[in-house]
Amino acid sequence: MENISNIRYGALPSNSPYIKPFRMRYVQDGITKDADLLKVHDSVCIIIYNRTTKKLIFVRQFRPAVYYAAVSENGSETDDNVNSTKYPPKLAITLELCAGIVDKDLPLKEIAREEILEECGFNISSDRIEEVMTYRSGVDTTGATQTMFYCEVTDDDRVTAGGGIDDEIIEVIELPMDEVEHMVKTGANVVSPPSFLLGVLWFLSNKKPQQ
Amino acid sequence: MENISNIRYGALPSNSPYIKPFRMRYVQDGITKDADLLKVHDSVCIIIYNRTTKKLIFVRQFRPAVYYAAVSENGSETDDNVNSTKYPPKLAITLELCAGIVDKDLPLKEIAREEILEECGFNISSDRIEEVMTYRSGVDTTGATQTMFYCEVTDDDRVTAGGGIDDEIIEVIELPMDEVEHMVKTGANVVSPPSFLLGVLWFLSNKKPQQ
Repeated sequence: MENISNIRYGALPSNSPYIKPFRMRYVQDGITKDADLLKVHDSVCIIIYNRTTKKLIFVRQFRPAVYYAAVSENGSETDDNVNSTKYPPKLAITLELCAGIVDKDLPLKEIAREEILEECGFNISSDRIEEVMTYRSGVDTTGATQTMFYCEVTDDDRVTAGGGIDDEIIEVIELPMDEVEHMVKTGANVVSPPSFLLGVLWFLSNKKPQQ
Repeated sequence: MENISNIRYGALPSNSPYIKPFRMRYVQDGITKDADLLKVHDSVCIIIYNRTTKKLIFVRQFRPAVYYAAVSENGSETDDNVNSTKYPPKLAITLELCAGIVDKDLPLKEIAREEILEECGFNISSDRIEEVMTYRSGVDTTGATQTMFYCEVTDDDRVTAGGGIDDEIIEVIELPMDEVEHMVKTGANVVSPPSFLLGVLWFLSNKKPQQ
């Protein structure tokens, strides 16, 4: 996963399939304002607890956005052909909940079910998936909705090793309770989105099994 | 705050001061990949507990990104000059932690201190502000870091009504414990970013005062 090379930056092409920026102009209390926004897909994420191993299941992946930000923080934001020895790609290997975008006309639980299978390799029916909460994943530029789910699996539900589909490169990882508790208690320096910390804290507050 | 009119959409100007999109190309495990990203500022957010009123302090504001997304969900995404009677702006009034971007060369705690004053009207010294945790606010497109802080204030610390500076239109709101507990337990349909829910859950797990 960390074999990253030939990093280059360029202009956003006008036909980007990933992000569609635009400007919104409006008048609020008599003041004309502009906001520059992005159209993106809604998404789902899933807290997965493995009852067999008594561990939580997460995914790790290289995130280009995090890499760019991490390199910028070290002062080399304008470098083209970034030195990946000086800035090792592991700086941008994130720890996240299993997640995916809503790009099909299916119930959200069904999309969650597919992500659990594709990314993590567990094949479960959608009635084993519980909706936890819904929020706006970005309020500054996207406004997209993310719905968080929870499910429990066992080793018997595993049908593949997971890892994503097409050219996704995703590593599945199981972490024990004491390790995730340490992460949220100390604010350990995880490279994660807030949904990861929110999901872990929600699990520890509501679902943590008695020892 | 909800007096919003003359909503129009247009192309992103190339000199947008808000978002700077670009493409990153790289090779991972032999596969060439593109990622379209945004350069944005890092940010801080602050969980504020008022010891006098025994309430948590939040901010409410109209978020254009959420409005656009809410209208899109109702099927009118391509409308120019959106009908704000049919789509009331209150759809996009968010409930959030006090927060701000890191656009000055100051310690993060000092930036947090300024936001607590500007948005919420409490003037406290930065040694009363505790760092909680750090995460990547967006892993898909921005990778920016958000640092979460916690502080306690009393009514004696209040020096203004808050509300933001320049043309910001921000409402300060105090909510009692039972109300915020309900929000995170039921996943009540708050229009909020994950940092709000994370901050509330962290507070309830770590700082909630004994009744």
